[in-house]
Amino acid sequence: MKLTTIREIYKDRDTYLDQEISVGGWIRSVRDSKTFGFIVLHDGTFFETLQIVYHDKMDNFSEISKLNVGAAVIVKGRLVATPQAKQPFEIQADEVTVEGASAPDYPLQKKRHSLEYLRTITHLRPRTNTFQAVFRVRSLIAYAIHRFFQDRGFVYVHTPLITGSDCEGAGEMFRVTTLDLDQIPKTEEGAVDYARDFFGKETNLTVSGQLNGETYAQAFRNIYTFGPTFRAENSNTTRHAAEFWMIEPEITFADLEDNMDLAESMLKYVIQYVLEQAPEEMNFFNSFVDKGLLDRLNHVLNSEFGHVTYTEAIEILEKNNEKFEYKVSWGVDLQTEHERYLTEEVFKRPVFVTDYPKEIKAFYMKLNEDGKTVAAMDCLVPGIGEIIGGSQREDDYDKLLGRMAELNLNAEDYAFYLDLRKYGSTRHAGFGLGFERCVMYLTGMSNIRDVIPFPRTVNNCEL
Amino acid sequence: MKLTTIREIYKDRDTYLDQEISVGGWIRSVRDSKTFGFIVLHDGTFFETLQIVYHDKMDNFSEISKLNVGAAVIVKGRLVATPQAKQPFEIQADEVTVEGASAPDYPLQKKRHSLEYLRTITHLRPRTNTFQAVFRVRSLIAYAIHRFFQDRGFVYVHTPLITGSDCEGAGEMFRVTTLDLDQIPKTEEGAVDYARDFFGKETNLTVSGQLNGETYAQAFRNIYTFGPTFRAENSNTTRHAAEFWMIEPEITFADLEDNMDLAESMLKYVIQYVLEQAPEEMNFFNSFVDKGLLDRLNHVLNSEFGHVTYTEAIEILEKNNEKFEYKVSWGVDLQTEHERYLTEEVFKRPVFVTDYPKEIKAFYMKLNEDGKTVAAMDCLVPGIGEIIGGSQREDDYDKLLGRMAELNLNAEDYAFYLDLRKYGSTRHAGFGLGFERCVMYLTGMSNIRDVIPFPRTVNNCEL
Repeated sequence: MKLTTIREIYKDRDTYLDQEISVGGWIRSVRDSKTFGFIVLHDGTFFETLQIVYHDKMDNFSEISKLNVGAAVIVKGRLVATPQAKQPFEIQADEVTVEGASAPDYPLQKKRHSLEYLRTITHLRPRTNTFQAVFRVRSLIAYAIHRFFQDRGFVYVHTPLITGSDCEGAGEMFRVTTLDLDQIPKTEEGAVDYARDFFGKETNLTVSGQLNGETYAQAFRNIYTFGPTFRAENSNTTRHAAEFWMIEPEITFADLEDNMDLAESMLKYVIQYVLEQAPEEMNFFNSFVDKGLLDRLNHVLNSEFGHVTYTEAIEILEKNNEKFEYKVSWGVDLQTEHERYLTEEVFKRPVFVTDYPKEIKAFYMKLNEDGKTVAAMDCLVPGIGEIIGGSQREDDYDKLLGRMAELNLNAEDYAFYLDLRKYGSTRHAGFGLGFERCVMYLTGMSNIRDVIPFPRTVNNCEL
Repeated sequence: MKLTTIREIYKDRDTYLDQEISVGGWIRSVRDSKTFGFIVLHDGTFFETLQIVYHDKMDNFSEISKLNVGAAVIVKGRLVATPQAKQPFEIQADEVTVEGASAPDYPLQKKRHSLEYLRTITHLRPRTNTFQAVFRVRSLIAYAIHRFFQDRGFVYVHTPLITGSDCEGAGEMFRVTTLDLDQIPKTEEGAVDYARDFFGKETNLTVSGQLNGETYAQAFRNIYTFGPTFRAENSNTTRHAAEFWMIEPEITFADLEDNMDLAESMLKYVIQYVLEQAPEEMNFFNSFVDKGLLDRLNHVLNSEFGHVTYTEAIEILEKNNEKFEYKVSWGVDLQTEHERYLTEEVFKRPVFVTDYPKEIKAFYMKLNEDGKTVAAMDCLVPGIGEIIGGSQREDDYDKLLGRMAELNLNAEDYAFYLDLRKYGSTRHAGFGLGFERCVMYLTGMSNIRDVIPFPRTVNNCEL
């Protein structure tokens, strides 16, 4: 079926003006007088709508006039400029064909619905302005990330979702099983008999693809992952979901500086891409969701990110401890309130905090010469706090083994990871970007449930 | 760390010839005479290697000469043309710095290893020629698919992995749970108490994002998914994995013809992209993995795909029933042997088989006017058989409800899906492309375990 899209009309109007075209879409509103009527049509390809003028010479004039919001129609007619009107052009229709009517109980009417209400109809909410904007921008961000890495020769690696190891210990995991929960098979000793499970062992959903990703970085030089990740944490906040997507690049012959340069370039690239590709959506967010969003993003594009060590950051924060619910001192992990204070009040731009105490960071981070801190970096951004966390990795076999022993990690479980330090180890580094945090940051949306098509949170797994 | 990549050197040699550059990579082989030596270096950015000449004026001459395969080095030197030699240029090194040695028990030696052996070291096999080629091409195919759809304005939708419904019934599912399998909580009636599970209900890993995807197509016009999918089937074949990636586009104001056009354009686009971007890898596959691969792919690029109805296909196949293990007659599902016969022997190119009996296809496919067949299409390709399966969807509320009743599907479970037929229903269609099958098709690799970085199959979930 050859239909012209509303995007094509807006982006390339000269091609279509005064031409006979056909468009298809869904009705946002319809109103009629005695002899003619107006349809506001949306076709999902573009944020703006198209006005259709229809008239009583059509056989189905009264059928059209009775159509409900949400009905699907195909319109044939001529695109004409309307310099006096609010909209730049309209279609003067010769034919309006009803593709699918919309029942009177359509849950989306012309009024404004609350985000909470729209969360109860996740299958219909993408038809609203807000979610049209959110999910088009989500798609563009995903693509921008692929472009960024592919243009730079990075290899995209699909790390596994089902995993036999809880390697990183980054969080609570979901069990994956085909055992019959009604009749769990037991061994003679009375334990669960995982030998009879699908994989013959205990398996869970991954919390990170990093360790697997490192194996590919040591073969391809630079790689990235982009896939779903899971946390079975019982936390009901606006920032946590049980299922979310993560990007994890890993670069070799590279140190913490290279890692920060990469993170900064990537964020700027993605912002730039979305501002260019979705100006209508971004203006909408700026006007109706988060006033000041565009200024903030443009400021990021034009700033160099700040750099501060954890130790320096603690000194700054300690002087302002009266402002915080959780008081800071050297050795504590930073809370969102501290992160936001640093990036919003102190630096007024994105900032990298580096060199955290080893005790509050993962075992694989490279120990600094002071013996106390590791070559970690978190990138903090205004409005969100931490958006990226990364590190240079410990590439020394003996140091890594020692650190694992300190933490009572079983070296056998990490044999593959230790192998990377045994056979052609290189300095290397990487980071993780929570994709949904990135979407929230670029759109100004404040609840993670509103940037995931079908969000999964505690006690919520609808559709 | 600023290093020139071997890709940059090969793609843009004039920039680097007779220049001082630094490269970093892993040693494929090293040999020395008394006063100088040769390193064959691979850096993961390009399929070809780079020859390094080093000499005994270096302090670490003997250290270098003793390096094992797999060691990581950084080389500083001058790139010089070698018109008389096998390789087009080499680096005459001033300095070779050892970044990381390789222990003597390195499992990859210079000899050829079997694919079976390499499956036991999934963390190291990407360092071999075959898997360098496979996984770079896998990455390029993934990106080509994104490019294809994004360039056409499709919105990328992340459909959920954890699902509360077994909507499509497409296969055995993995249970996802946080219940303690040692002590499954029970209700008063003695059933598993899923109210105490993380989501408060039974949840599984998805077998398809299609139904969710349709909800977004009815908002954005054209969408695609690209994400992991799971099957808990106990089938130990070269074509089945428990975890694989799938692409599922869904288009509205579109019928089966549009769907086939889209599938054909997509496959051709991806083939073209990979041939352009990875000629070295594709030549390698053609020479060492699947002789005739390039001819076959080029033939696809230059052919229009064939079209045949299921009924016509059965007539053709019945005449050749003596050739098949499973005899065909109208009403049976096609096996791989039949699919391959059609595409390899009858059509000698990719072919769409359309209009299958409704009994062997899913409930959501649009019933044809004959009342017996549905508007389904499978795309068969030489060497593989079915690579794409799709259909026009039933868009009529009453017909869909009727078909669901015939199949004893509970309408309440599909309320969201029925809503799409109630509020602005449009003709729409879509298909699923198994990503790994696509990678196998383009590389000639014959076992799915060799095109997935860390494959998951029955009793196998390593790393």
